[in-house]
Amino acid sequence: MNIYFAGSIRGGREDAALYARIIDFLKQFGTVFTEHIGDSTLTDQGDEGFTDRQIHDRDMDWLLASDVIVAEVTTISTGVGYEIGRAVSLGKKVICLYRENPGKKLSAMIAGCPHLSMIIYHQPEELEKSIVNVLTNS
Amino acid sequence: MNIYFAGSIRGGREDAALYARIIDFLKQFGTVFTEHIGDSTLTDQGDEGFTDRQIHDRDMDWLLASDVIVAEVTTISTGVGYEIGRAVSLGKKVICLYRENPGKKLSAMIAGCPHLSMIIYHQPEELEKSIVNVLTNS
Repeated sequence: MNIYFAGSIRGGREDAALYARIIDFLKQFGTVFTEHIGDSTLTDQGDEGFTDRQIHDRDMDWLLASDVIVAEVTTISTGVGYEIGRAVSLGKKVICLYRENPGKKLSAMIAGCPHLSMIIYHQPEELEKSIVNVLTNS
Repeated sequence: MNIYFAGSIRGGREDAALYARIIDFLKQFGTVFTEHIGDSTLTDQGDEGFTDRQIHDRDMDWLLASDVIVAEVTTISTGVGYEIGRAVSLGKKVICLYRENPGKKLSAMIAGCPHLSMIIYHQPEELEKSIVNVLTNS
Protein backbone atom coordinates (compact mmCIF):
# COMPACT_ATOMS: atom_id res chain seq x y z
CA MET A 1 0.00 0.00 0.00
CA ASN A 2 1.24 3.50 -0.86
CA ILE A 3 0.42 6.13 1.74
CA TYR A 4 0.57 9.91 1.43
CA PHE A 5 0.86 11.60 4.81
CA ALA A 6 -0.15 15.28 4.85
CA GLY A 7 0.79 17.67 7.65
CA SER A 8 1.50 21.36 8.03
CA ILE A 9 4.88 22.77 6.95
CA ARG A 10 4.58 26.52 6.33
CA GLY A 11 1.39 26.68 8.42
CA GLY A 12 3.48 25.80 11.50
CA ARG A 13 5.69 22.96 12.68
CA GLU A 14 4.50 22.57 16.27
CA ASP A 15 3.17 19.07 15.57
CA ALA A 16 6.30 17.79 13.73
CA ALA A 17 7.10 15.19 16.43
CA LEU A 18 3.53 13.88 16.27
CA TYR A 19 3.73 13.65 12.47
CA ALA A 20 6.94 11.58 12.83
CA ARG A 21 5.17 9.24 15.25
CA ILE A 22 2.19 8.77 12.91
CA ILE A 23 4.47 8.20 9.91
CA ASP A 24 6.45 5.57 11.86
CA PHE A 25 3.19 3.82 12.68
CA LEU A 26 1.92 4.00 9.08
CA LYS A 27 5.13 2.50 7.70
CA GLN A 28 4.08 -0.96 8.88
CA PHE A 29 1.26 -0.84 6.31
CA GLY A 30 3.33 0.18 3.30
CA THR A 31 5.43 2.96 1.81
CA VAL A 32 4.92 6.46 3.19
CA PHE A 33 5.95 8.83 0.38
CA THR A 34 6.09 11.98 2.48
CA GLU A 35 8.34 10.88 5.34
CA HIS A 36 10.07 14.30 5.37
CA ILE A 37 6.90 15.87 6.87
CA GLY A 38 7.88 14.35 10.23
CA ASP A 39 11.52 15.47 10.03
CA SER A 40 12.22 17.74 13.00
CA THR A 41 14.92 19.57 11.01
CA LEU A 42 12.34 20.61 8.40
CA THR A 43 11.32 24.16 9.36
CA ASP A 44 8.33 26.23 8.34
CA GLN A 45 10.48 27.55 5.49
CA GLY A 46 9.77 24.25 3.76
CA ASP A 47 11.91 22.01 1.58
CA GLU A 48 15.14 23.80 0.83
CA GLY A 49 16.72 23.31 -2.58
CA PHE A 50 13.40 22.89 -4.38
CA THR A 51 11.25 25.49 -6.09
CA ASP A 52 7.58 25.70 -5.11
CA ARG A 53 6.71 24.27 -8.51
CA GLN A 54 9.00 21.27 -7.97
CA ILE A 55 7.46 20.66 -4.53
CA HIS A 56 3.93 20.90 -5.93
CA ASP A 57 4.59 18.57 -8.84
CA ARG A 58 6.51 16.01 -6.74
CA ASP A 59 3.76 15.96 -4.11
CA MET A 60 1.01 15.63 -6.74
CA ASP A 61 2.89 12.70 -8.32
CA TRP A 62 3.03 11.05 -4.89
CA LEU A 63 -0.66 11.80 -4.27
CA LEU A 64 -1.61 10.22 -7.60
CA ALA A 65 0.43 7.11 -6.80
CA SER A 66 -1.08 6.71 -3.31
CA ASP A 67 -3.79 4.32 -2.22
CA VAL A 68 -4.66 6.32 0.87
CA ILE A 69 -4.08 9.87 2.11
CA VAL A 70 -3.72 10.37 5.86
CA ALA A 71 -3.93 14.06 6.81
CA GLU A 72 -3.32 15.50 10.27
CA VAL A 73 -5.56 18.59 10.18
CA THR A 74 -5.17 20.06 13.68
CA THR A 75 -2.66 22.71 12.59
CA ILE A 76 -4.43 24.92 10.07
CA SER A 77 -2.71 24.58 6.68
CA THR A 78 -3.75 25.79 3.24
CA GLY A 79 -1.49 23.17 1.65
CA VAL A 80 -3.04 20.26 3.58
CA GLY A 81 -6.49 21.53 2.57
CA TYR A 82 -5.40 21.66 -1.07
CA GLU A 83 -4.06 18.10 -0.90
CA ILE A 84 -7.31 16.84 0.66
CA GLY A 85 -9.33 18.63 -2.05
CA ARG A 86 -7.23 17.11 -4.84
CA ALA A 87 -7.37 13.65 -3.21
CA VAL A 88 -11.16 13.77 -2.75
CA SER A 89 -11.57 14.80 -6.41
CA LEU A 90 -9.39 11.85 -7.44
CA GLY A 91 -11.67 9.49 -5.47
CA LYS A 92 -8.82 8.48 -3.15
CA LYS A 93 -9.41 7.09 0.33
CA VAL A 94 -8.80 10.04 2.68
CA ILE A 95 -8.42 9.79 6.47
CA CYS A 96 -8.28 13.02 8.50
CA LEU A 97 -6.94 13.14 12.05
CA TYR A 98 -8.09 16.02 14.27
CA ARG A 99 -7.00 16.56 17.86
CA GLU A 100 -10.02 18.30 19.35
CA ASN A 101 -8.85 21.79 20.26
CA PRO A 102 -11.02 24.87 20.79
CA GLY A 103 -8.12 27.10 19.66
CA LYS A 104 -7.76 25.33 16.33
CA LYS A 105 -11.18 24.97 14.88
CA LEU A 106 -11.69 22.44 12.14
CA SER A 107 -12.88 23.80 8.79
CA ALA A 108 -16.50 23.03 7.89
CA MET A 109 -15.19 21.98 4.46
CA ILE A 110 -13.25 19.17 6.14
CA ALA A 111 -15.60 18.36 9.05
CA GLY A 112 -18.58 18.33 6.67
CA CYS A 113 -16.98 16.50 3.74
CA PRO A 114 -18.81 13.21 3.12
CA HIS A 115 -15.95 11.77 1.07
CA LEU A 116 -13.43 11.24 3.88
CA SER A 117 -13.10 9.39 7.18
CA MET A 118 -12.65 11.63 10.20
CA ILE A 119 -10.83 10.48 13.33
CA ILE A 120 -11.22 12.85 16.28
CA TYR A 121 -8.77 12.18 19.13
CA HIS A 122 -7.41 13.72 22.29
CA GLN A 123 -4.20 11.82 22.93
CA PRO A 124 -1.81 10.37 20.32
CA GLU A 125 -2.20 6.97 22.05
CA GLU A 126 -5.81 6.78 20.81
CA LEU A 127 -4.84 7.24 17.19
CA GLU A 128 -3.25 3.93 16.30
CA LYS A 129 -6.28 1.76 16.97
CA SER A 130 -8.57 4.18 15.13
CA ILE A 131 -6.28 4.29 12.09
CA VAL A 132 -6.15 0.48 11.94
CA ASN A 133 -9.95 0.36 12.15
CA VAL A 134 -10.38 2.76 9.23
CA LEU A 135 -7.61 1.20 7.12
CA THR A 136 -9.05 -2.28 7.50
CA ASN A 137 -12.67 -1.22 6.88
CA SER A 138 -12.12 -0.26 3.27
CA MET B 1 -20.30 35.36 -14.75
CA ASN B 2 -20.62 33.40 -11.52
CA ILE B 3 -17.84 34.00 -9.02
CA TYR B 4 -16.91 31.98 -5.93
CA PHE B 5 -14.94 34.06 -3.45
CA ALA B 6 -12.95 32.01 -0.92
CA GLY B 7 -11.56 33.48 2.30
CA SER B 8 -10.78 32.27 5.79
CA ILE B 9 -13.59 31.78 8.31
CA ARG B 10 -12.46 29.39 11.06
CA GLY B 11 -8.79 30.04 10.20
CA GLY B 12 -9.23 33.63 11.40
CA ARG B 13 -11.34 36.66 10.50
CA GLU B 14 -8.71 39.42 10.61
CA ASP B 15 -9.09 40.09 6.87
CA ALA B 16 -12.94 40.17 6.85
CA ALA B 17 -13.08 43.89 5.87
CA LEU B 18 -10.69 43.24 2.99
CA TYR B 19 -12.82 40.29 1.84
CA ALA B 20 -15.88 42.58 1.83
CA ARG B 21 -14.01 45.12 -0.29
CA ILE B 22 -12.89 42.48 -2.81
CA ILE B 23 -16.42 41.01 -3.00
CA ASP B 24 -17.87 44.49 -3.63
CA PHE B 25 -15.39 44.96 -6.45
CA LEU B 26 -16.09 41.52 -7.94
CA LYS B 27 -19.86 42.13 -7.98
CA GLN B 28 -19.51 44.40 -11.02
CA PHE B 29 -18.45 41.33 -13.03
CA GLY B 30 -21.30 39.03 -12.03
CA THR B 31 -22.86 37.15 -9.15
CA VAL B 32 -20.67 36.47 -6.11
CA PHE B 33 -22.14 33.36 -4.45
CA THR B 34 -20.21 33.64 -1.22
CA GLU B 35 -20.95 37.21 -0.19
CA HIS B 36 -21.24 36.17 3.48
CA ILE B 37 -17.44 35.64 3.63
CA GLY B 38 -17.04 39.44 3.83
CA ASP B 39 -19.72 39.90 6.50
CA SER B 40 -18.09 41.48 9.56
CA THR B 41 -20.68 39.82 11.82
CA LEU B 42 -19.57 36.35 10.65
CA THR B 43 -17.15 35.15 13.33
CA ASP B 44 -14.58 32.38 13.24
CA GLN B 45 -17.29 30.10 14.60
CA GLY B 46 -18.63 30.01 11.05
CA ASP B 47 -22.17 29.98 9.66
CA GLU B 48 -24.57 29.51 12.53
CA GLY B 49 -27.69 27.47 11.93
CA PHE B 50 -26.07 25.11 9.43
CA THR B 51 -24.35 21.80 10.01
CA ASP B 52 -20.84 21.35 8.63
CA ARG B 53 -22.27 18.95 6.05
CA GLN B 54 -24.81 21.55 4.91
CA ILE B 55 -22.05 24.19 4.61
CA HIS B 56 -19.80 21.80 2.67
CA ASP B 57 -22.52 20.73 0.25
CA ARG B 58 -23.85 24.28 -0.31
CA ASP B 59 -20.33 25.59 -0.97
CA MET B 60 -19.52 22.71 -3.34
CA ASP B 61 -22.75 23.40 -5.27
CA TRP B 62 -21.69 27.04 -5.58
CA LEU B 63 -18.17 26.04 -6.62
CA LEU B 64 -19.53 23.74 -9.32
CA ALA B 65 -21.79 26.52 -10.65
CA SER B 66 -18.96 29.10 -10.72
CA ASP B 67 -16.98 30.27 -13.73
CA VAL B 68 -14.11 31.58 -11.65
CA ILE B 69 -12.85 31.09 -8.09
CA VAL B 70 -11.12 34.06 -6.44
CA ALA B 71 -9.30 33.00 -3.24
CA GLU B 72 -7.63 35.36 -0.77
CA VAL B 73 -4.89 33.10 0.63
CA THR B 74 -2.99 35.42 3.01
CA THR B 75 -4.73 34.05 6.13
CA ILE B 76 -3.84 30.37 6.36
CA SER B 77 -7.00 28.29 5.96
CA THR B 78 -7.50 24.56 5.47
CA GLY B 79 -10.95 25.23 3.98
CA VAL B 80 -9.66 27.69 1.38
CA GLY B 81 -6.96 25.18 0.42
CA TYR B 82 -9.62 22.47 0.04
CA GLU B 83 -11.75 24.72 -2.18
CA ILE B 84 -8.74 25.56 -4.38
CA GLY B 85 -7.88 21.86 -4.68
CA ARG B 86 -11.45 20.96 -5.69
CA ALA B 87 -11.63 23.90 -8.13
CA VAL B 88 -8.29 22.99 -9.77
CA SER B 89 -9.44 19.39 -10.17
CA LEU B 90 -12.64 20.63 -11.81
CA GLY B 91 -10.58 22.65 -14.31
CA LYS B 92 -12.06 25.94 -13.07
CA LYS B 93 -10.29 29.25 -13.52
CA VAL B 94 -8.68 29.99 -10.13
CA ILE B 95 -7.20 33.34 -9.07
CA CYS B 96 -5.29 33.50 -5.76
CA LEU B 97 -4.57 36.79 -4.01
CA TYR B 98 -1.62 36.88 -1.58
CA ARG B 99 -0.54 39.91 0.44
CA GLU B 100 3.19 39.33 0.78
CA ASN B 101 3.82 38.82 4.47
CA PRO B 102 6.81 37.09 6.07
CA GLY B 103 4.63 36.05 9.03
CA LYS B 104 2.11 34.27 6.80
CA LYS B 105 4.05 32.16 4.40
CA LEU B 106 2.28 30.94 1.31
CA SER B 107 2.00 27.16 0.90
CA ALA B 108 4.23 25.65 -1.80
CA MET B 109 1.16 23.75 -2.98
CA ILE B 110 -0.49 27.07 -3.85
CA ALA B 111 2.60 29.10 -4.86
CA GLY B 112 3.83 26.22 -7.03
CA CYS B 113 0.50 25.19 -8.56
CA PRO B 114 0.63 25.67 -12.35
CA HIS B 115 -3.16 25.56 -12.70
CA LEU B 116 -3.97 28.92 -11.10
CA SER B 117 -3.19 32.62 -11.51
CA MET B 118 -1.33 34.19 -8.60
CA ILE B 119 -1.63 37.88 -7.75
CA ILE B 120 0.90 39.04 -5.16
CA TYR B 121 0.12 42.46 -3.70
CA HIS B 122 1.10 44.75 -0.85
CA GLN B 123 -1.79 47.21 -0.65
CA PRO B 124 -5.47 46.53 -1.41
CA GLU B 125 -5.38 49.43 -3.91
CA GLU B 126 -3.13 47.37 -6.20
CA LEU B 127 -5.56 44.48 -6.35
CA GLU B 128 -8.36 45.81 -8.53
CA LYS B 129 -6.26 46.44 -11.65
CA SER B 130 -4.55 43.05 -11.30
CA ILE B 131 -7.87 41.24 -10.92
CA VAL B 132 -9.27 42.96 -14.03
CA ASN B 133 -6.14 41.98 -15.95
CA VAL B 134 -6.47 38.30 -15.03
CA LEU B 135 -10.25 38.19 -15.52
CA THR B 136 -10.01 39.71 -19.00
CA ASN B 137 -7.07 37.53 -20.09
CA SER B 138 -9.04 34.32 -20.04
